Amino acid sequence: MIDGQKRTVVDYVGPQVDGGRFPVKRAVGETVVVVAHAFCDGHDLVRAEMLYRKQEQSEWTIQEMACGANDEWSAMFRVLELGNYFYTVQAWVDGFATWQRDLRKKLEAGQNITVELQMGARMILAAADMAAPDDAQKLNEWAQVLQSSAGPVRAPEIALGESLTQMMRKQAHRSLSATYDRELAVLVDRPKAVFSAWYEMFPRSCGEAGRHGTFRDCERLLPEIAKMGFDVLYLPPIHPIGQTSRKGKNNSTLCAPDDPGSPWAIGSSLGGHRAIHPELGSFEDFQRLMAKAGEHGLEIALDLAFQCSPDHPYVTEHPEWFRWRPDGTVQFAENPPKKYEDILPLNFESDQWQPLWEELKGVVLFWIDQGIRIFRVDNPHTKPFVFWQWLLSEIRRDYPDVIFLSEAFTRPKVTQRLGKISFNQSYTYFTWRNAKWELEQYIEELTKTETGEYLRPSFWPNTPDILPQYLQYGGRPAFIIRLLLAATLSASYGVYGPAYELCVNQALEGREEYLNSEKYEIKLWDRETPGNIRPLIERVNRIRRQNPALQSIRNVELYPVNNEALLC
Amino acid sequence: MIDGQKRTVVDYVGPQVDGGRFPVKRAVGETVVVVAHAFCDGHDLVRAEMLYRKQEQSEWTIQEMACGANDEWSAMFRVLELGNYFYTVQAWVDGFATWQRDLRKKLEAGQNITVELQMGARMILAAADMAAPDDAQKLNEWAQVLQSSAGPVRAPEIALGESLTQMMRKQAHRSLSATYDRELAVLVDRPKAVFSAWYEMFPRSCGEAGRHGTFRDCERLLPEIAKMGFDVLYLPPIHPIGQTSRKGKNNSTLCAPDDPGSPWAIGSSLGGHRAIHPELGSFEDFQRLMAKAGEHGLEIALDLAFQCSPDHPYVTEHPEWFRWRPDGTVQFAENPPKKYEDILPLNFESDQWQPLWEELKGVVLFWIDQGIRIFRVDNPHTKPFVFWQWLLSEIRRDYPDVIFLSEAFTRPKVTQRLGKISFNQSYTYFTWRNAKWELEQYIEELTKTETGEYLRPSFWPNTPDILPQYLQYGGRPAFIIRLLLAATLSASYGVYGPAYELCVNQALEGREEYLNSEKYEIKLWDRETPGNIRPLIERVNRIRRQNPALQSIRNVELYPVNNEALLC
Repeated sequence: MIDGQKRTVVDYVGPQVDGGRFPVKRAVGETVVVVAHAFCDGHDLVRAEMLYRKQEQSEWTIQEMACGANDEWSAMFRVLELGNYFYTVQAWVDGFATWQRDLRKKLEAGQNITVELQMGARMILAAADMAAPDDAQKLNEWAQVLQSSAGPVRAPEIALGESLTQMMRKQAHRSLSATYDRELAVLVDRPKAVFSAWYEMFPRSCGEAGRHGTFRDCERLLPEIAKMGFDVLYLPPIHPIGQTSRKGKNNSTLCAPDDPGSPWAIGSSLGGHRAIHPELGSFEDFQRLMAKAGEHGLEIALDLAFQCSPDHPYVTEHPEWFRWRPDGTVQFAENPPKKYEDILPLNFESDQWQPLWEELKGVVLFWIDQGIRIFRVDNPHTKPFVFWQWLLSEIRRDYPDVIFLSEAFTRPKVTQRLGKISFNQSYTYFTWRNAKWELEQYIEELTKTETGEYLRPSFWPNTPDILPQYLQYGGRPAFIIRLLLAATLSASYGVYGPAYELCVNQALEGREEYLNSEKYEIKLWDRETPGNIRPLIERVNRIRRQNPALQSIRNVELYPVNNEALLC
Repeated sequence: MIDGQKRTVVDYVGPQVDGGRFPVKRAVGETVVVVAHAFCDGHDLVRAEMLYRKQEQSEWTIQEMACGANDEWSAMFRVLELGNYFYTVQAWVDGFATWQRDLRKKLEAGQNITVELQMGARMILAAADMAAPDDAQKLNEWAQVLQSSAGPVRAPEIALGESLTQMMRKQAHRSLSATYDRELAVLVDRPKAVFSAWYEMFPRSCGEAGRHGTFRDCERLLPEIAKMGFDVLYLPPIHPIGQTSRKGKNNSTLCAPDDPGSPWAIGSSLGGHRAIHPELGSFEDFQRLMAKAGEHGLEIALDLAFQCSPDHPYVTEHPEWFRWRPDGTVQFAENPPKKYEDILPLNFESDQWQPLWEELKGVVLFWIDQGIRIFRVDNPHTKPFVFWQWLLSEIRRDYPDVIFLSEAFTRPKVTQRLGKISFNQSYTYFTWRNAKWELEQYIEELTKTETGEYLRPSFWPNTPDILPQYLQYGGRPAFIIRLLLAATLSASYGVYGPAYELCVNQALEGREEYLNSEKYEIKLWDRETPGNIRPLIERVNRIRRQNPALQSIRNVELYPVNNEALLC
């Protein structure tokens, strides 16, 4: 139903992601600068208001917007609580302000304003009818003066005066206002979703003399990690590792009896995603590690890898969650001709997808119960987007402080979608962006386009899966350069250590994989290798903490990057 | 209700205007290149289809899309009829194509494919169940071969062969397809909405020896106008002109008895918007002029100026459509301190806006009945956007060949909105864009951004209201330059003549108004002034007709503009 008297248009409200289909992201304490295009036909003045509310509130908080150039309006609000906020904009023709503007011009031109004052008085009297008694009395008095013979003389003082202006603004009725046709959403996380420094470490390599490391062993390393200035300690999967088709050193299909297997081959007779690999310790040890880490300002992040070893209990308990081949075997992961026999993907196309979803939600809630609030999600791009969208919103309803980092080294549209639906942080292509021009272009994309509203980058110069060529061939200076770039171009970043601070750069021939990768064996790191860059990491993380400009992607400025100078 | 088995995402479909709120524009015979982002999780192959239909059709026409780089898909359709088309995109995981791709890789790697062939055969048999008898028989046969001992040998020929591939594509069931959440619209006009050359002329100046010109007089000029290559002859309002507060020469409030008044001060005791100013001739004369113009390839465009002189019959018959002042007078148009006493705006905020809208629609239909199909709309930005949106769609329902040109020299957002809601053509800021850089920037905006999808520019180097400084001071070369730019940078353009081809450049002191403007007096033009640029106009319009690149804004390329070279 058209209302022909509604003359105002609210044509665009931002920030918005994908036409308003997805929320923009903010952390507690950050601001949302809401912009809108608002205008009407003709030359009348328009007034616009921003409306915002926390999801739980039924009433909008309303705030006046300011008009800049080109009919573009803005206002801002600060998000103070975790969860979802909504915002929109309304605007209407401000008849009284228009009248004031024209009256002022006519006064300046020395024109007769008697009739104009009658018209203004009519508006004031109409406002008085709607006002509270006190206000109404004042409005009636002003209207009388303007209509009287003293009107023309007192008009500048009364009609254009601050008191009447304020009162009429207050009384403005918005019956003919236009409201934007969408309510836009903000997802508000805790500050660590924006600003964080991650350290990834295999607990099993923390033992002494090549012995399988335990959570207790990890405790000894906490002071060193904290001293470097990290605030998240991320552990690869800590669950029992399968025996069937276990991989040996360097991803070999030949597995020696003492090879520990990949931690991502989750599940054995000892349990699945809710169990702890016994050699790492007990749940009690894990609790102790979390507590000790907390004392050092370190929060533990767990790996969420929704896949199974052939020995995972799910395989026998829920065969309907796997893809069975005509030969009676379960389909393992493959990227033909490559085969990953130690890993069985879950079949999200199963008719029984609903119980599967609930079970996986249960896994997340299980670790939340253990006190975990940060998950690094392994390969989210190999599970349906609808699943993540559901899971993350389910978890956030009760635990809005949980942070999910998307480990999706995949195609741009897929990476973006995972940000939209809405992982709190994302791995990025930084790992392979080396030249100044490509870094500038990429940072521009991440911070100055719509992407900056929903995708929070986490820059990783290396991971257990990736030893980039730049690090392979650049020596220690390359590790320094990449650290500085990661830590200063992105508010969140991380390294896989101790390989990183020890500048380990031996790769499999022609690959970007580590030689003798820690994924398949226990490493005995010499933490005191001369030339290790721990002091530099410590300094960089201190600079990050001291410099607010480095703590939000929306503040990032592009500093000139000069690799040569850094190499000297 | 989530369907967890739907793995595909259709993330963006274009072209779209303002998130799909408004149609894109095309002319009959043009194409719509539909693009979409479509992808799924993991590494499976996706298939995408464009769906389009004319508004009257209940069934979609479906067309396969092609995948380019970066998960971006495209397909195109040609619009062949006037009216509205809709389009959207659906996509789904193509399990069979994924299987074929993996099978090929395994064959190339020399792997055993026996189990794979069983899996493929299952898919083929499932397709056979849904297929027509002939197809089903073939599918069953192929499945049997692949399952037999001959399967591995014949797999390359059968499983990867063209016949099975085509058949399986045909049988694809789309039950788990994702469809974009919006249907996007195309407004299809006739070609003249895109490509046109307008000539504006005051009929009353076509008389001989200073006598008030008539439609009959206009007929004599048709050959000359047609020879110059124009295809639209646009006449300022042809209705009776008010007497009350009529303006004299140069917009003077003093009006001599023989001053003819501004044609935009519409309405007198002789009639309003449905009447013809008697001195111009009769309806019969008008019909004759239209017919003669048609013989010369010229289509008559009328002015639609929804405003009234104080003598317009509406004022007494429908006082509720005007804004009455407390002194009992009707509010005239003003832009304080300027006053336009000869023009009363209609009050669209009237409670009686619905009868007013219907009446104005009646005016348009009246002239459509007379055979008019092009309207140049005077100041549409001073009437509500909702009104135009309603009026244009009402008219188009029965007369999709009608073209409306928006004469809105106003703020950018307002100009854009009028394009969106959806005038077929728009006046632009070309009139004041002179330097190379600003022309490039402006053409870029008009052709390479979203604006190009909904705002069709019409470039006017002059109008009866505007004699730009560039023409005032640049002499004959300026008129040549501006003509060349208008005619080659925009598929539609127009000039106000004969002032233009005679290079009339005398302005009111310090203004961009013509001195002794034709708006307020009858002009006796000397059409044979030496140095008139008629031959050049003729040549330019011929080049336009011969060069398809100049006939569509979507084809426009930026040619280097070199004013100096043109001046030589």
